[in-house]
Amino acid sequence: MSDGTPTDRTELRREPQLGVHDPEVIRSIIDGALICHLGLTDTDGHPLVIPTIHARVDDQLYVHGSAASRTLRRMATGIEVCCTITHVDGIVLARSAFWSSMNYRSVMVFGRARPVTDPDEIDLALDAIVEHIAPGRSAEVRRPTRKELQATKVLALTIDEASAKVRTGDPNDDPADLASDVWAGVVPITTQFGAPIATSGLDPAVPIPVSVRRMLAPRQS
Amino acid sequence: MSDGTPTDRTELRREPQLGVHDPEVIRSIIDGALICHLGLTDTDGHPLVIPTIHARVDDQLYVHGSAASRTLRRMATGIEVCCTITHVDGIVLARSAFWSSMNYRSVMVFGRARPVTDPDEIDLALDAIVEHIAPGRSAEVRRPTRKELQATKVLALTIDEASAKVRTGDPNDDPADLASDVWAGVVPITTQFGAPIATSGLDPAVPIPVSVRRMLAPRQS
Repeated sequence: MSDGTPTDRTELRREPQLGVHDPEVIRSIIDGALICHLGLTDTDGHPLVIPTIHARVDDQLYVHGSAASRTLRRMATGIEVCCTITHVDGIVLARSAFWSSMNYRSVMVFGRARPVTDPDEIDLALDAIVEHIAPGRSAEVRRPTRKELQATKVLALTIDEASAKVRTGDPNDDPADLASDVWAGVVPITTQFGAPIATSGLDPAVPIPVSVRRMLAPRQS
Repeated sequence: MSDGTPTDRTELRREPQLGVHDPEVIRSIIDGALICHLGLTDTDGHPLVIPTIHARVDDQLYVHGSAASRTLRRMATGIEVCCTITHVDGIVLARSAFWSSMNYRSVMVFGRARPVTDPDEIDLALDAIVEHIAPGRSAEVRRPTRKELQATKVLALTIDEASAKVRTGDPNDDPADLASDVWAGVVPITTQFGAPIATSGLDPAVPIPVSVRRMLAPRQS
């Protein structure tokens, strides 16, 4: 994991006061998000942004997908990628359009993806991806078969060049607007899990497992 | 707006059954999301993925930012960008790790960003961005001054090369797993707006405006 020293890419030129290089904050933003947006440059030179599930183990950020995926195969060649993770925490309503904003926490991780080939690390990564979404689930489900593992590609990105940007709190109104009679403030945003819907045909005697009951407990982000 | 005919970039090679080229679906996914993730290739060739607020007017997707932003200035030179918008609608828990998934709706829009320079179109775009988040808000707030407009850059991306990918419903379990006693189903995910928090020092006599009361009404996505 990075010690937090900004590089040329992770140093914020715009709004440097929102920049965070604390590894603890970076980890919590990564871990609290359901998905990331992975950016790469395609063979013909155009950028591509792919939403995908991720999981972190120590300083490794894992993603996975079909071994037949053209995009994953391209990333596995070691091209540069940018993984961005964003939580939108609130709408910031200022007294003016210009100063209106959002409260958010975002992380950008830069680097070259590494194809994971060691069977133990593949197991670790795939379990981490299941656990990332539903802690405890990996012990409840059937484990991957050899054929399923062959159909799956896992990539790792080392979190050593990363930065976070965090905005919290009230709008920064122009002092000249403070006397106006326009309401200003923040509308908080949260992500909620709803009541689980059993798949059609599920034996009604099968109880809702611990992993799902845990998901329904209030979430931090 | 695209008539929906896939191009080489928007035709799904993986899981083509999830591909949607219906312009109506693409528009609803764009309009229902608070933010997008904009991908571009930086001057030194590495990919960059930026989370930002967007708004759509007809077939134009608008984003904005500081006129001093290096990234926005780079996009304004007409380089290729990829704008990805993703809603995570549910966790799909299969009886096996392999078939576990997510329900989601995502859109990718490809093209070259155009710097918006016409003052009327800048007004239209900035109003649309405010309205995208809080319908009715643009009429409540102080409008941008000439100086604020000079500090703001607006870019437009024509939605003519776009595709959506939508997954809904139950897990697709392996038929061999259907007899297992593992719970399977979907945990729905929704985004909720919480009670508005007035900015510190706001005159308590200022009522919560119509735009904020509208935001608190249940949201579709």
